[in-house]
Amino acid sequence: MNLDHYPRGVLVPVLTPFQGDLTVDADRFVEHCRWLLAEGANGLAVFGTTSEANSLSIAERMNLLERLITHGVPPAVLMPGTGCCALPDSVALTRHAIEHNCFGVLMLPPFYYKGVSDDGLYASIAEIVQRVGDERLRIYLYHIPPMAGVGFALPLIERLLKDFPRIVVGIKDSSGDWKNTQALLESFPGFEVFPGSEMHLLDALRKGGAGCISATANVNVAAISRVIHERKGADADALQDAISRMRAAIQKFPMVAANKAILARIRDDSGWDVVRPPLRPLATEAKAQLFQALESLQFDFGRRVATV
Amino acid sequence: MNLDHYPRGVLVPVLTPFQGDLTVDADRFVEHCRWLLAEGANGLAVFGTTSEANSLSIAERMNLLERLITHGVPPAVLMPGTGCCALPDSVALTRHAIEHNCFGVLMLPPFYYKGVSDDGLYASIAEIVQRVGDERLRIYLYHIPPMAGVGFALPLIERLLKDFPRIVVGIKDSSGDWKNTQALLESFPGFEVFPGSEMHLLDALRKGGAGCISATANVNVAAISRVIHERKGADADALQDAISRMRAAIQKFPMVAANKAILARIRDDSGWDVVRPPLRPLATEAKAQLFQALESLQFDFGRRVATV
Repeated sequence: MNLDHYPRGVLVPVLTPFQGDLTVDADRFVEHCRWLLAEGANGLAVFGTTSEANSLSIAERMNLLERLITHGVPPAVLMPGTGCCALPDSVALTRHAIEHNCFGVLMLPPFYYKGVSDDGLYASIAEIVQRVGDERLRIYLYHIPPMAGVGFALPLIERLLKDFPRIVVGIKDSSGDWKNTQALLESFPGFEVFPGSEMHLLDALRKGGAGCISATANVNVAAISRVIHERKGADADALQDAISRMRAAIQKFPMVAANKAILARIRDDSGWDVVRPPLRPLATEAKAQLFQALESLQFDFGRRVATV
Repeated sequence: MNLDHYPRGVLVPVLTPFQGDLTVDADRFVEHCRWLLAEGANGLAVFGTTSEANSLSIAERMNLLERLITHGVPPAVLMPGTGCCALPDSVALTRHAIEHNCFGVLMLPPFYYKGVSDDGLYASIAEIVQRVGDERLRIYLYHIPPMAGVGFALPLIERLLKDFPRIVVGIKDSSGDWKNTQALLESFPGFEVFPGSEMHLLDALRKGGAGCISATANVNVAAISRVIHERKGADADALQDAISRMRAAIQKFPMVAANKAILARIRDDSGWDVVRPPLRPLATEAKAQLFQALESLQFDFGRRVATV
């Protein structure tokens, strides 16, 4: 795996901070993105599920992306989420990402209607490709049926790869089903497959996976990155076990709120605890349980403050 | 039931027509809305599931609403859907509806995140109420778990009614579960309950229901309206049976595409067959089966042309 080929490696679906009045906190966002890159993130998959992207307006997403870039985050590491329910929105966000030289976009299928046909999902992607009409477009499909209620099945991916071979280049597989990730890796050589969790990172890398795009990379990116760098070393499995245990402890709680709570403690900044409805912050008791679990796994809340 | 009290009775979740290039066809939309009112619709629940509202941008929804009103559709019959995934969008659409004097709004819960708490859904509605900050606001909750993946459970409704008694005034129940509709009717006297289908219209009316908001009212509103007007007459059950059979025949097919296909035939206008992805138009064979089923039920495609 060539780690210089962005955005392979660990990509972070960046948490989106809010002020107490629920407005977007662009300053905290930029600072967090810079910290993640300093900690070893290979790319930033801003505006994903962990980012509460679907709780943001289109204008808020565009403004945040522009802010990142004007504050020095290189667009070559950026893979913004741009898939919306409405075709005009997906086209507008995708065009905007390309105009700002982002490496690629992470594309949710339109997720309101359930039980839609693969033909309908194909048409959604095909319309976006055609309307955007830019050969720089690189689409990473975002497969997350537990949230979206619809997803990208293998025959649909095959059809997309056949018709848009240089445009549809990869997938984030957040099915939570390792068998699906395996099938993707085996069926489509060269297709960049990112599991949506670090739990099977080493397994995926050994089968040609591109890395991972994981919520918990918001608070544990250095350790996840080390698994990638040491993947051929004697310690690889032990390092994988450590990040898997950490992930398992965190995902017992609602992921966005849990990651925000951890980050609030790492940075000693309770401003990070704010989520937009329908999400809720962790209750005090849940937070205490989460922190206790992480401490028992030697999660170093303090070290990370020093690296900011 | 006082039918003069808008928008009780039959409300139509109006189909949204598109041009061949998938742009919104505002002229066909206005014409369809006027026809529905002429045919007996008591109100228009524009921008619902049947309207492909979540496939429209916020600007497209606002423009269509303004077009309707400037073309003489009275805002007192309008109940636009305004609930989106993103709080700023829901607030903007709701404010816009009130500023244009719409009777009420139909409010989907934020529908991207699944497994969210009632507390989070409560917070979503409460934030909208507070941010809109207008005593003219009338919210009809839109309960459609088969699509949205989240919904308004009875304890949540109870809490909303307690805290916003003059604002949260009704519900469209598209659960497809008559037991849920019954429980709503029995639990909250005075709360305006609209089943999302005409299948149990008479049952609902007899228990104090407000009417119905049904996709198939796009093509069968006169017959549905007659059930309401004749609900105490000797023919009521026979009229109900007739509209139930019609609904049953149509809902064997994807609802939006099926209704558009029927309307295209009624109006002899194939322009009505266009849907936005991820939906697809009915295939030729499915269309033939649908039409045959309706003809065997004496659905009069021709009469409706004459009433336009």
